[in-house]
Formats: sequence, structure tokens, C-alpha cells
Amino acid sequence: MNDEKNVLTEQAEQKDAFDPAGGAINVCDRIDHTALKPVATEEDIVKLCREAVEYGFASVCVNTFYLPLCRKLLKEKDETGVNCCVVIGFPLGACATEAKIFETLYAVREGADEIDMVINVGAIKAGQDEVAAGDIRGVREACRGKILKVIIETGLLTDEEKVRATTVAALSGADFVKTCTGFSAGAATTADVSLIRATLDSLESAGSTPHVKIKASGGIRTYEDALSMIFAGADRLGASAGVKIAQEQAQQNGGQVPV
Amino acid sequence: MNDEKNVLTEQAEQKDAFDPAGGAINVCDRIDHTALKPVATEEDIVKLCREAVEYGFASVCVNTFYLPLCRKLLKEKDETGVNCCVVIGFPLGACATEAKIFETLYAVREGADEIDMVINVGAIKAGQDEVAAGDIRGVREACRGKILKVIIETGLLTDEEKVRATTVAALSGADFVKTCTGFSAGAATTADVSLIRATLDSLESAGSTPHVKIKASGGIRTYEDALSMIFAGADRLGASAGVKIAQEQAQQNGGQVPV
Repeated sequence: MNDEKNVLTEQAEQKDAFDPAGGAINVCDRIDHTALKPVATEEDIVKLCREAVEYGFASVCVNTFYLPLCRKLLKEKDETGVNCCVVIGFPLGACATEAKIFETLYAVREGADEIDMVINVGAIKAGQDEVAAGDIRGVREACRGKILKVIIETGLLTDEEKVRATTVAALSGADFVKTCTGFSAGAATTADVSLIRATLDSLESAGSTPHVKIKASGGIRTYEDALSMIFAGADRLGASAGVKIAQEQAQQNGGQVPV
Repeated sequence: MNDEKNVLTEQAEQKDAFDPAGGAINVCDRIDHTALKPVATEEDIVKLCREAVEYGFASVCVNTFYLPLCRKLLKEKDETGVNCCVVIGFPLGACATEAKIFETLYAVREGADEIDMVINVGAIKAGQDEVAAGDIRGVREACRGKILKVIIETGLLTDEEKVRATTVAALSGADFVKTCTGFSAGAATTADVSLIRATLDSLESAGSTPHVKIKASGGIRTYEDALSMIFAGADRLGASAGVKIAQEQAQQNGGQVPV
């Protein structure tokens, strides 16, 4: 395991010499390199971390069981440039608020840099916005100083509910609103990203919230998908196809994929 | 809410007069009446509890967010005959063991009678049986005296892995081995129930474990499905189609559906 750590740190140092996008928008540093399937093994997670360093992804995004392993492999963020991101209450968002808070406290203690929580979808559906807000505020309190993304699961919501969920998330302290878990109906769409962006801009203009960012996730499989999401307003992308996207980017821009 | 409680208790008292299966096997008292979708609202859960009492189901099976509501509506089990069952680490089973333990302690404190946890599928895949066992033992310790079901998620496993997961679950103190979450690939099959039954029988014959039961769940939608699972060896059934199954049972057996 010590060898693994050294390799990743060395890779990170070499990576700075590369410009994989050949001067165009580099999508790599916006990608949360993601492995959330229940069948993922320790070996898969080691590969994920290795790839994240190699391609310069923003983070690895994993279930909390694998956080200690990722933290060990990626050392401190300053050494590899890659954050550790975990999911909380995932993917249903329907566990008790106390359970979400505990899992968040665990994640912070184990060194997570970013927390992707799932909103209480049923509360949004029922119009119980205060319940959904309390759930998010609890997690926000538990991870002060870390990046908090709130997954609103757009595929299960009407447009009215998307706007309401976005508003609840932003007012409750989210740093990012995130579209989908990838485990339910629907995928990220440019229309949803635009709708969320407009909602967040309106809150910011009114002075109700600071600037809140967007993470598009669910069904992003190609460099073209990634670019469309960024042009629609996404700041971060969740994808398990990060390596393929990075390679397509290098091909299309004449840049070089770091070895 | 007080009215609701009284109605459910009265219904439970009346129910005892009915034999909905007309003398044949009554599948109703083996059904965990299930609502786990993230879109489920408080209203849906109230309906679920009402139906569980009306049809005499074994339990309602919900996410932990709705446990306090169910406990309140169903009062003590002795009053309605219906248990409160919750899912833990659901549906991926990939959260940290500490998070599963905390959620279980929360559930016990809030009055859960039954705990359906998801096994660490990745650990089984990787051959790390001791990791999967430790995860289950932690939850087992946290819910002594309650019924513990361990979901092995058959749809993601090979036959060899199903046998190994069943063995790990039984040796770690499971009261039931449960087939599927219903949120991943695959559904309950009679072949899987038979394989699990044979594995559990062999452990029991060897004196390694006491008798462990089986809960079949995932894709059980008709009375015929329910009967096949019971004939294959299932003791309990997880289904969101419980009302339809109960009505089919009444029709086919000349019994009466309790009003």
C-alpha cells in the first residue's frame, strides 16, 4: 500500500506538465470519477484512484465503505490534487435525518473533502419543504468547511418540484445542486441544468443565497455529453465513464492523454 | 392522528374473524407490505399501514425516515398484529459498517421490530468474507432481540457467491436470508430460494447455525408468484403488491377479503 501511495503522488507531480485538452476547455478537472455500484471491489477502487490522479479528475466519488481506502491512496488533496467525495443517504435519500448526519460525521472524520447527499424526495413530493430543508441543514452543520452537494433526483420530479427542491437546497446551505443519483429514473439533461441554473441565479440576484454551483450527473458517457452539460451551466460532472471522456477529449483537441 | 390509531386498532380486532385464504395457505401473514421508493410520501405510508392491518400482513417495510410514523400508527405490535420493519444500508449495502450500526441503533430506539440490512456485496465479490461478516455482526449486536434479515442481492451474485453470502449471513447471526432489494438487477427466483434453503439446511444439519429462515423479495407481484416462493422454501415475502396478492388469494380460494 505504501508503494501505491508513492506511485499516485509521483503521478500527480508529473501530471502538471500535461494539458490534456490541448488548450480547449478541460473537462477532466470538472469530473467526479465515480464508482458507486454495490459490486465495486477494493481492486476497482484502487483503479479508480489511480485513474483520477492520472487524468487529473476533480475527485473520486465512492460509497462511505471505501472512503478510508481512498483517503489512504490519495493522501492529502495537496499531494495528488484529487478530492475524496462520498455519497450520503444514497441513493434513496429516505433514511432518517439522524442517519444522514451520522454518516456525514463519519465521512468528515475519515477525511472526506466533499459530501454528496440525497434530498428527502418524498418530502418534496408532499410539499413538506421544511422537512427537506431540516434534513439538509443537519448534514450542512455536520460538514462545515467541506463541499456539500445536494442531489435533488430530477428524474423523479416535475419542473415545479425541481425549482422547489433547488430552492430548498440552496437556502439550506448547499454549495452545489446535483441532478441525479444515476440509480433511479432519468439522467442529467441540459434542460434541467438550465432550469436549476436559472433558479439559482434568481436566488443569488435577490440576495437570498451566495453563488451556488451545479453538478450534472447521471448518463454522462461521452465528451460531447460533458461539454453540453458545461455549456448548459454545469460546474462539475459526475461520471463513471471519466477515462473514456478524457480520451475522447484528447483525441478531439489534439491534446495528449497523460500516460 | 389519534383517530387514525383508533381506526387501525379496531380494524385489527375485527380482522381476527376473517380467514382470507378460505382455509388454504394464507400468504397474507407472510407478507412484508413494502413501500421503499424515494417518492413515497407520508400519505402513502399512512395508506400502507392501514392496508397492513386490514389484510393482516406480517409487517410494513419502510425506509427509516418513516419509522416513527409507522410506529405511531401501528402502536405496539400486540395491538395490531403488524410489525414495523425497516431497511438499513439500503439498497447498495456499501456504506460504512459504522453507518449501518448507527442506523440500526436509531431504528431499535424508534421501535423497529425487524431490520432488513443489505450485505456488503463488494466484499463478497472480492472474497473478503470476513469483512462482510464483520459488517453483519455489527448490525446483529445493535439489534439483539429483534428480527434481522440479511439481503444478499442474488441478482448481482453467481451461484457460488450466493452460497457464500448465505453462509456468511447465517454464521453472523441472521434470522432470515433475504434475496433482493428490488432496486438492483434481478428478482427473487424459486431456484435461488431453493439454493439458499439447501445451504441453510446444510449449515443447520452440521450444527453450525440454528434454523435460519428465508425472505423472498423482488418482483413478487401475484398470488401465484407468492405461492411458488413459499413452495420453494420462503417463510416471508417482500412485496409492494400485497393488496393485489391478497385479493387474488381471496378470489382463488373462495375466501373473503376483509373490508
